[in-house]
Amino acid sequence: MEKRRQVKLEDVAALAGVSKTTVSRVLNNRGYLSNDTKQKVHEAMAQLNYRPNAIARQLFTQKTNLVGLVFPTVNDPFFGQLEAGLDEHLYKRGYRTLMGNSQNNPQKEEQYLQLLLNHQIDGLIIGAHNPAMPDYLEASMPIVSIERAVAPQIPVVASDNYRGGQLATQRLLDDGCRHIIHTNYPKEVMTTNQGRREAYEDLMRTNGRPAITYEVNYDTSVEEKKAIFTRLFAEHPEVDGIFADNDTNAGLIIQVAKQLGRRVPADLKVVGFDGADGTRILFPELTTVQQSINEMATVAVELLERQIAGQTKVASVTLPITLLEGTTA
Amino acid sequence: MEKRRQVKLEDVAALAGVSKTTVSRVLNNRGYLSNDTKQKVHEAMAQLNYRPNAIARQLFTQKTNLVGLVFPTVNDPFFGQLEAGLDEHLYKRGYRTLMGNSQNNPQKEEQYLQLLLNHQIDGLIIGAHNPAMPDYLEASMPIVSIERAVAPQIPVVASDNYRGGQLATQRLLDDGCRHIIHTNYPKEVMTTNQGRREAYEDLMRTNGRPAITYEVNYDTSVEEKKAIFTRLFAEHPEVDGIFADNDTNAGLIIQVAKQLGRRVPADLKVVGFDGADGTRILFPELTTVQQSINEMATVAVELLERQIAGQTKVASVTLPITLLEGTTA
Repeated sequence: MEKRRQVKLEDVAALAGVSKTTVSRVLNNRGYLSNDTKQKVHEAMAQLNYRPNAIARQLFTQKTNLVGLVFPTVNDPFFGQLEAGLDEHLYKRGYRTLMGNSQNNPQKEEQYLQLLLNHQIDGLIIGAHNPAMPDYLEASMPIVSIERAVAPQIPVVASDNYRGGQLATQRLLDDGCRHIIHTNYPKEVMTTNQGRREAYEDLMRTNGRPAITYEVNYDTSVEEKKAIFTRLFAEHPEVDGIFADNDTNAGLIIQVAKQLGRRVPADLKVVGFDGADGTRILFPELTTVQQSINEMATVAVELLERQIAGQTKVASVTLPITLLEGTTA
Repeated sequence: MEKRRQVKLEDVAALAGVSKTTVSRVLNNRGYLSNDTKQKVHEAMAQLNYRPNAIARQLFTQKTNLVGLVFPTVNDPFFGQLEAGLDEHLYKRGYRTLMGNSQNNPQKEEQYLQLLLNHQIDGLIIGAHNPAMPDYLEASMPIVSIERAVAPQIPVVASDNYRGGQLATQRLLDDGCRHIIHTNYPKEVMTTNQGRREAYEDLMRTNGRPAITYEVNYDTSVEEKKAIFTRLFAEHPEVDGIFADNDTNAGLIIQVAKQLGRRVPADLKVVGFDGADGTRILFPELTTVQQSINEMATVAVELLERQIAGQTKVASVTLPITLLEGTTA
């Protein structure tokens, strides 16, 4: 098989219609560059699938030691702990972070990505759930994704969500629950969380029980969520077990259930997901599937550093999870 | 009285030993400037107490619509909600935010401040607890502080912490508690939270009871905090009420108390502080003093915008607080 000719800086310059110097400045985020120029060069790199090798990078590199984080929010025990962990690890390795909240707004997310690029970052760690991801990013920038499959060449750090879904569902089945309901994102949301739902559906099927998922979007307000969970109990008064896709939803479900006069765990058993440190302090009674949030942060920073060092093939990593016993199931 | 001659751009340029153009570029964060030059100009502005007026600013202004946030962490229900709220309000008004976690590390905080300045921000909202604050910042940049008295000319947005301390302590006294202990930061930490402690000490004094405060630093680990609270119960077995300076500490105190066989509220009554939305979901039973976190965010953004618009005297704002009844006191 003929070896493909390696794409060179010259090829990118020719396609973008700019000088080699301009391409190297874009590559190394050095000097003043208009957004138009940057975009032309990034698009040419994407089209040619140009990946600068480590030596080529080092020749030009003026590292900024700045890493961008783009996540949906910081007002969440999981994302709060994750972003604090990423920040801590990056700081120890000599990087500073700049954080942008996307609020799950695709336009806002793209604006942040553009903003961070303009501010000369060495790399990007993303965990927002929006499908939109500018093509030029994928080709030209060290990126690690957390809990979200973005593009084939971008490594993903995620928990073993399928295993987590199995553990939670099996726990409720073992508790004798016959009518187990699950909550999760709508199916079109591109997150590895969907593995939790797949495991729940598979286990319910093999146990000959119906699988019912109530869909709750990430940015649904607390009041709307309470309305959804109130409707759940009205539509399925037989429910005796709930596997919630995160601990915040589990907490709200338990509040609604108590208001409706149901005793937890006597009448209703609830298993959550995440097990963030902050949640364990405030609600240690919750039975939940715990993600290794600190390890996700450590691994994500390692994968990013390998890309910054010039490594082009960095594999995704799946981390183990554990069931934390509480008293709600 | 002789009116003081107004300090002009020329004066700053002369003192800094640079051209007027350079001063205006520093003032408007435009073009390439070395850190040395920036610092010289900022120092000259600070020394002369130079405050560019709105018209002077507008003549040069090339707004970046970027606002920096520097807070200790995002892994906290209070700071998470606050930073998410600031980000949301700033976004609605056309600003993007860049966040930096200081982890209560003075060196890291200063690095972030420098970084944000280099990245051409229009203003800064800070809530970190470190005493260090570069002088040049105070003179040249629109800044709002949250819960921290930084410098006389920087407006502070804070809850009525003294009133909060009164509400919490009085609640425990009304419950019949005779041995009430408080937790708070060490006294040297420059935060308006100290008002909670003052109110507690005043109320204990007027009730002829001893005031005992266990000091817990913000960045103390969960394990260390548990050790402090275990020691609290060993040193003061008579304790029958605790006013914790935040809900996370209240949660840990209740965990430790339960492990030691104390029933809450029968043997021990606990009142927390903050009442963040995330905490209310996970631990709605906690009796706590609730800060208006969303309003803090709204007000802080308003005060910052007024400074960005050129207003030089912006007053501090104190927000009312409420006692939320739960079942822990």
